[in-house]
Amino acid sequence: MICVLSGGTGGAKFVDGLRQVMPAEDITLVVNTGDDLLWWGLYVSPDIDSITYVLSGMLSRERGWGVKGDTFLCLQAMGQLGEPTWFHTGDRDLAMHLLRSRLLAEGKTLSDATSVISEKLGVKARVLPMSDSRVETRVDTPAGELSFEEYFVQRWYQDPVNSVRFAGASDAEPAPGVIDAIVSADAVLIAPSNPITSIGPILAVPGIREALQRAHGKIAAISPIVGNAPVAGPAGILMAAQGLPCSIAGVAQAYEDFLDVLICDTRDARPAEALRKNGLRVQCTQTIMRSAEDKAALAREVLSCVAPAPRAGREPIHHGVAARHLDPQP
Amino acid sequence: MICVLSGGTGGAKFVDGLRQVMPAEDITLVVNTGDDLLWWGLYVSPDIDSITYVLSGMLSRERGWGVKGDTFLCLQAMGQLGEPTWFHTGDRDLAMHLLRSRLLAEGKTLSDATSVISEKLGVKARVLPMSDSRVETRVDTPAGELSFEEYFVQRWYQDPVNSVRFAGASDAEPAPGVIDAIVSADAVLIAPSNPITSIGPILAVPGIREALQRAHGKIAAISPIVGNAPVAGPAGILMAAQGLPCSIAGVAQAYEDFLDVLICDTRDARPAEALRKNGLRVQCTQTIMRSAEDKAALAREVLSCVAPAPRAGREPIHHGVAARHLDPQP
Repeated sequence: MICVLSGGTGGAKFVDGLRQVMPAEDITLVVNTGDDLLWWGLYVSPDIDSITYVLSGMLSRERGWGVKGDTFLCLQAMGQLGEPTWFHTGDRDLAMHLLRSRLLAEGKTLSDATSVISEKLGVKARVLPMSDSRVETRVDTPAGELSFEEYFVQRWYQDPVNSVRFAGASDAEPAPGVIDAIVSADAVLIAPSNPITSIGPILAVPGIREALQRAHGKIAAISPIVGNAPVAGPAGILMAAQGLPCSIAGVAQAYEDFLDVLICDTRDARPAEALRKNGLRVQCTQTIMRSAEDKAALAREVLSCVAPAPRAGREPIHHGVAARHLDPQP
Repeated sequence: MICVLSGGTGGAKFVDGLRQVMPAEDITLVVNTGDDLLWWGLYVSPDIDSITYVLSGMLSRERGWGVKGDTFLCLQAMGQLGEPTWFHTGDRDLAMHLLRSRLLAEGKTLSDATSVISEKLGVKARVLPMSDSRVETRVDTPAGELSFEEYFVQRWYQDPVNSVRFAGASDAEPAPGVIDAIVSADAVLIAPSNPITSIGPILAVPGIREALQRAHGKIAAISPIVGNAPVAGPAGILMAAQGLPCSIAGVAQAYEDFLDVLICDTRDARPAEALRKNGLRVQCTQTIMRSAEDKAALAREVLSCVAPAPRAGREPIHHGVAARHLDPQP
């Protein structure tokens, strides 16, 4: 069993690789819900959506979010009705939000709703929201405090950022299964997601950071920072706002109380060496995921870093951890 | 001022004619909400939708409901999620249901929500739901009691009908403005809608039938029955279930306590004569509306039947009633 802590975009790409090289049944995802928003009266959970879409083969790989081949006629019609249209929900994508909203309105938890939707879409991995309580990532800017989606999508992350907070986190509980998934996993992987606003909200839920500290398996994080810049998005600005350098050292620092292995790009060989001198295990590899092969290769590399050493004369006991080689050409 | 009592399909066609020959500002519509349903968790008001779409020029004239040129990708995706798909909501059409549902969830009444949406779509006529209370048309069949949409759309009105009732009607109040619109109108027109399940629910709201009885203006009904058969839909079966003959006499009987003029098709000249002998004013004309010209001609004919006689030497005082002649070629 592998447990993956993930946000939406980078996380979805990494999970796309992971599902190529190991059975999806052996993956539990703990997903950020700090970006969740009420949109047109519907409950939208952008990171759960991206993870669910990638696991069901529905994700638009071109966009990195939403459903492939989707259209946006409802969005257009909402614009004609004078409703906001900055958050792009496709027509097929709306089905997800409608069903989830109905399930929540019927009194189901976000965990229940996520599980119902996963089953309906044939998702074999277990997808868990970090919490069934509402935790909202709030970005303080000179223009005022914004929700994450307002900051990120509506305003194109152009505002300077003073600080980030996770409203509701102190009263939140981890969703059912989250703590056990982390503690008992053969390995825990931190996806190459934004450490502040994708992984940060997960770590802000009381009990999750402690679970990571006492986890049974090794914990590896894939750096979303390559050569002092985020692969995508505002991670650099947000890390700076939280007092972390925008570098693999900053990523290591964000996770320092539980991290066993940092996976960084080969371009970061020099800062990797510095981190190793401080006692952290660092593995350099190709972390930019352009093709399906890139994704699978990174997933294999990461799994090999966290696989327990095989005992003499025996097969590895945790075969969920050992990368399966599912090359298209044997 | 003209007040029109209307259902969805036949009513929308008639209103499409009316808006060609008189200023939309001078029309108040009192619309059936007995077909309203919760669909995918959204509040859908099929007749208000059709009337709103026809008045905003958005109605699909081919289908007679929904938005012209609409697509159905969300519906398809809902089917993939295992949700029901028998009630067809298009992608553009969803915007209407999303906005109305959000407004209702925010505590607005159906009247308020209808008015907000009308304004946003540039509808100049006043569209009033018959009531802001929930009144549900229930159709009793050997297969059990069905909502109107279940009977009509889901099951293609194939079930024999024992009876029809309007659940909630006895506790309902007319929506704000309805009674005044009926009583003070220069004329009240009953659209060629199903007398049982389109006009019936309106008449079942306490106070509305009484308002018609004491209305200031003339009241005309356009028969949806031509030659012992409904122009479309299950009106015949439903009239029979309620003890009314499926004929213009049945229509006259449904409205007998307030009707001044019955407009029927030229094919019904013989039964029209019989009704006249009983003292009802009956006007025979072409009531089948195939083209825009058909619709305009019927609207003109109906308006001329309810126009007050001009006083000697003066222009008609109620010029909203007098048909304007807006022929494309002058």
